[in-house]
Amino acid sequence: METLTKSAYEELIEEVRRVHHITSVRSLLGWDQRTHMPRKAVKFRAMQYAALTEYAYNFITSDRFVSLLERAESEGYAEGSRESMNLYWLRRTYEKTVKVPLDLTLRLIRKTTETEVIWREAKAKDRPDLVLPHLKEIVELEREKAAYLGYESEPYDALLDGYEPGLKAEHVERTFSLLKEETVKLLNRVKEARESGRVPETIRGRFPVEDQRRFHLFLLRSIGYDLEAGRLDETTHPFAVRITPGDVRITTRYKEDDVTDGIFSTLHEMGHALYEMGVPEEWFGEPVGSTSSLSVHESQSRFWENVIGRSPEFWERFYPYLQAFFPSLYDVSVEGFLFAVNDMKPSFIRIEADELTYNLHIILRFELERDLINGRLNVEDLPEAWNQKFREMFGITPPTYRQGFLQDIHWFSGSFGYFPTYAFGNVIAAQIRNSMGKDVDIPSAVRSGDFGVILGWLREKIHRHGSLYRPMDLVRRATGEDPNPAYLVDYLREKVERFYG
Amino acid sequence: METLTKSAYEELIEEVRRVHHITSVRSLLGWDQRTHMPRKAVKFRAMQYAALTEYAYNFITSDRFVSLLERAESEGYAEGSRESMNLYWLRRTYEKTVKVPLDLTLRLIRKTTETEVIWREAKAKDRPDLVLPHLKEIVELEREKAAYLGYESEPYDALLDGYEPGLKAEHVERTFSLLKEETVKLLNRVKEARESGRVPETIRGRFPVEDQRRFHLFLLRSIGYDLEAGRLDETTHPFAVRITPGDVRITTRYKEDDVTDGIFSTLHEMGHALYEMGVPEEWFGEPVGSTSSLSVHESQSRFWENVIGRSPEFWERFYPYLQAFFPSLYDVSVEGFLFAVNDMKPSFIRIEADELTYNLHIILRFELERDLINGRLNVEDLPEAWNQKFREMFGITPPTYRQGFLQDIHWFSGSFGYFPTYAFGNVIAAQIRNSMGKDVDIPSAVRSGDFGVILGWLREKIHRHGSLYRPMDLVRRATGEDPNPAYLVDYLREKVERFYG
Repeated sequence: METLTKSAYEELIEEVRRVHHITSVRSLLGWDQRTHMPRKAVKFRAMQYAALTEYAYNFITSDRFVSLLERAESEGYAEGSRESMNLYWLRRTYEKTVKVPLDLTLRLIRKTTETEVIWREAKAKDRPDLVLPHLKEIVELEREKAAYLGYESEPYDALLDGYEPGLKAEHVERTFSLLKEETVKLLNRVKEARESGRVPETIRGRFPVEDQRRFHLFLLRSIGYDLEAGRLDETTHPFAVRITPGDVRITTRYKEDDVTDGIFSTLHEMGHALYEMGVPEEWFGEPVGSTSSLSVHESQSRFWENVIGRSPEFWERFYPYLQAFFPSLYDVSVEGFLFAVNDMKPSFIRIEADELTYNLHIILRFELERDLINGRLNVEDLPEAWNQKFREMFGITPPTYRQGFLQDIHWFSGSFGYFPTYAFGNVIAAQIRNSMGKDVDIPSAVRSGDFGVILGWLREKIHRHGSLYRPMDLVRRATGEDPNPAYLVDYLREKVERFYG
Repeated sequence: METLTKSAYEELIEEVRRVHHITSVRSLLGWDQRTHMPRKAVKFRAMQYAALTEYAYNFITSDRFVSLLERAESEGYAEGSRESMNLYWLRRTYEKTVKVPLDLTLRLIRKTTETEVIWREAKAKDRPDLVLPHLKEIVELEREKAAYLGYESEPYDALLDGYEPGLKAEHVERTFSLLKEETVKLLNRVKEARESGRVPETIRGRFPVEDQRRFHLFLLRSIGYDLEAGRLDETTHPFAVRITPGDVRITTRYKEDDVTDGIFSTLHEMGHALYEMGVPEEWFGEPVGSTSSLSVHESQSRFWENVIGRSPEFWERFYPYLQAFFPSLYDVSVEGFLFAVNDMKPSFIRIEADELTYNLHIILRFELERDLINGRLNVEDLPEAWNQKFREMFGITPPTYRQGFLQDIHWFSGSFGYFPTYAFGNVIAAQIRNSMGKDVDIPSAVRSGDFGVILGWLREKIHRHGSLYRPMDLVRRATGEDPNPAYLVDYLREKVERFYG
C-alpha cells in the first residue's frame, strides 16, 4: 500500500540518501588517513576507497537510478523548490559521470596517482625533467576529458565547471584583469614604503605547542565553533572535513617558533567548518544538503582568517589573551603584532603569501593552466613561462623550480580549473564584508566579542541554504550582485593605506 | 572473453570481497565512535551504520548471491580447501540470515537499543524493577530467534552457536563442571591462606599517565606489536579492532593511582591484536581471512595477559624497567609486585576478578542464561537466583543488584550465549601453554625477552590459519585435543601453590 503512494521523487531521494550514508564514510576514511592511520594500512585503505567509489559510480549509472530520475523530473516540481534543486544536482552528477568514458576516468586516476609520487621526487630534487613528460600526459588526458564533457567557447570551461558550477573562463578573466591591475599598483606602493623603511618587526619566541593548542581552542569557543560537534587535531597540511552533520572536524599545525602561523590556519579551517555546521542537518544525504561551490567555501574560510582574523579589532580583543598565554609577547605592542600579521611583500610560495600578493599567485596559475588546457602553451615551455610571468607580476624570479611551477600539487594530481576558486573566495569574502557591513557594525561586534551577530548573518544569508541555489545565485542573493572584485580591491587598498600609507 | 573463463566461485568471491571492503569500514566507524567522535554525531553515525548493515543484508539475501553460491558449491572444491571453507562460511552466514525473519531481527535491535539505555539507569539507581520487564521481552525475542534458527537438544544451543560455531551447551556444561569443582576447592585453599595472613601488599603511588603510556608502548614494542600497523589510544573500556590488515588498533585505560590495571589491559588487547595481525593479509575480504571464534580470540588475549603477563619470568624481565619509570616502586620487591598482580579473592565484579575466580563468574552466568533461554528460569526470579548462586559459589552475597545481575551489559543488549566464550578462552590459553611448552622453553624465552619464539608458535599454529578451519578443529590441530579444562586447572593450581602454598 505504502509504496503505491510514493512518488518517483520520494523513492529516488530515499535511495540517494541511503547511498550517501554509505559513501559519506569516505570523509571519515580520509580524516583518519591524515590524522591517525598507521603507515602499513595504505594499501588496504585504498581498497576501501576504491570499493566505495565503484559503488557510487554503479549507483549513479544504474538503469534504476536513471529511470527514477527521469520519472521524478516529469513530476513537475516548482522551479527553485528543494525537490527541483535536488533533481538538478542529481541530473548534473549523472551527466558528468556518463559523458566521460569510465576508461578515461580510470586512466586519469592511475596517471595522477603515479605522477603525484614522481612530483614529490622532482620537487625535492628540483628536477623538472623528471615530471614534465608525466604532466604532459595528464594535460592530454584532461583535454580529452574536456572534449567529452563539452563546452561552448573553450575547453578550459569544461574543467572549471567541475570545481565551480556555471563559472566561465571569460568571467574569471574579467574579474582577474581588474584585480591584477590594481594589485600590482598597490604592491608598488607597498614596495616603495618598504624601501623607505616601513617594515614590521619579526615576532620571535618559543611558543609551546600545548599552550598554542589551548589558545586555539579558546579562540574557537569564543567565535562559536561547537566543540561538541567537532574536533581540533594536528596535521602537517591543515584541513576541515564534515564527517556527518554534528561532526565537522578541523586540523591545524603548530610551529614552536611561530605563534601566528597556526592561529590563521585554525581560523581558516574554522571558517570552512562553521559553513559545514550551518547547513540544515535534516538535508543530510540530499544534494541540497551540501555546501555550495569551492569559491563560496573559500569565501567563508578567508572571511574568518583575513577579514575578521587580521582586523585591528580582532587583536584589540584577543591580543591581551595571547600575551597572557605567551608572556614574551608583552615586549611587542598590539600595533606591532598587527602589522606583523598584515605584512605584505612579494614572495615565491603561494601558501605563504600575504593577502595582497596571494591573488597574483592565483592569477598567474589561471593564465598558465588556461593556456595549457586550451592548447596555447606546451608543457615543455611551462617552467620558463612560469618564471617569466612571475617576473612580470612580482618583479622577482624564482631561483629554483620548486619555488616556481613545482610548488603546488594541483596540476600533478589532475586538478585543472581549481585555482581560480581560491581568488574568487577572496573576492566573495570582501563582497560579503561590504554587504554584512550594511546590517552589522562589524568592527564593534568583533571588538566586543559578539561573533554571534556575524556568524548569524552568514548562517542566514549563506550557510542555511546549502545547495538550494546555484553558487552564483547564492552570492547574488546574499550580496545583491555577481562576484565583483571592486570590494576586494577597496579592502586591500584600506589595508595598504593602514599599514604602508 | 575474460568473464567467460571465470568460475562461479571466482565471481562470488570477487563480489564478496568488494562488499567486505565496504562493510569493513564499520570497524573504523566503531573505533572512531569510541575514541574521537564528537557527541553530537551520534544520530548520524547511527544512520551510516544502519545503511551499511542494510547493504550487507541486501547482498547476502540477494538472488544473485544465492545463485552464485549454489553454482560455486556445485563446482566441487576439495574438502578443507580455502575455496570450500569460504563457501562453508558463506553458506552459514546465508542460512543464519534468512532463517530469522527480518522483522524479528529489527524488533530485537530496537528492543535492545532501548533497553541498554534503561539498563544504565537501572544500574545507576540499583533498581531491577526498571529493567526487568524489558529483559523479559528480550528473553522472549531471543527464544523466538532460537526457535527460528533451530537446534537439536535445547534452544540455548542455537544462540551459543552464533558466538561459538559448533559448540553445544552440553559440552560447555561438562567443561565447566570440572572447572567449577576444582576452582571452588582452590578458592577454599586461598581463603584459608588469606585468613592466616598470606595477603599481598597493595601497591600505592602516583603514576603519571604519560609515563604509563610510554611504558606500555615499550612493552608493546618489546613483545612484537607493530606500531606501524597499529595504534594505542585511551578509552574507558579498552578494546582491540582490526580496521584492515596493516591496521589493528588497541586502546587501554590509565589510572593515576594504579600502575598495573592499565598494563594488563594493554597486554590483553595486544593479544587480540597480535592475532588479527597474524591472519594472511591477502585473504582480506574473504571469510577465511577472519580470525576464528570468540573463544579462540579470547585465548590469545588471555595468553598474553595472564599466562605470560602474570608470570614470574615476565616481571623478572620487566620489573627493573617499570621501577626505572616509576622510582617509587624501588620500595616494592619484584616478588611483592608479582604477588600483588596474582592476588586471588572472591569479589563481586567480573571484570575486576582475578584469574581463579573469573571462571566462576562466567559459570554462574552460563547456568543462569541457559535456564532463561531454555525456559527453566523466569526473568522475575533472576535477581534472587543470581544472589543465591553467587553465595553458593563464592561464599558472599552481593550487597546491591548493580554488584549482582545488573553489572554486565550483555543480556540487556541481547547477547545470550556469549559469556561461555570468555572461560573457554582461558581453557584454551592454558591448553596452548601446555602444547607450546613441548616445543618452546616458555619461561626462559620470556626471561630473555625472546618473544619472537612464542609469537612465532602462535602464528604458525593459530594465527596464519584465519578461519580456514572450524574453531574446534583449529584448537585440535594446534593442541592435539578438544578444549580440556584440566590444563587450566593445573595452571591455576600451580599459581595457588606458588602464592598461597
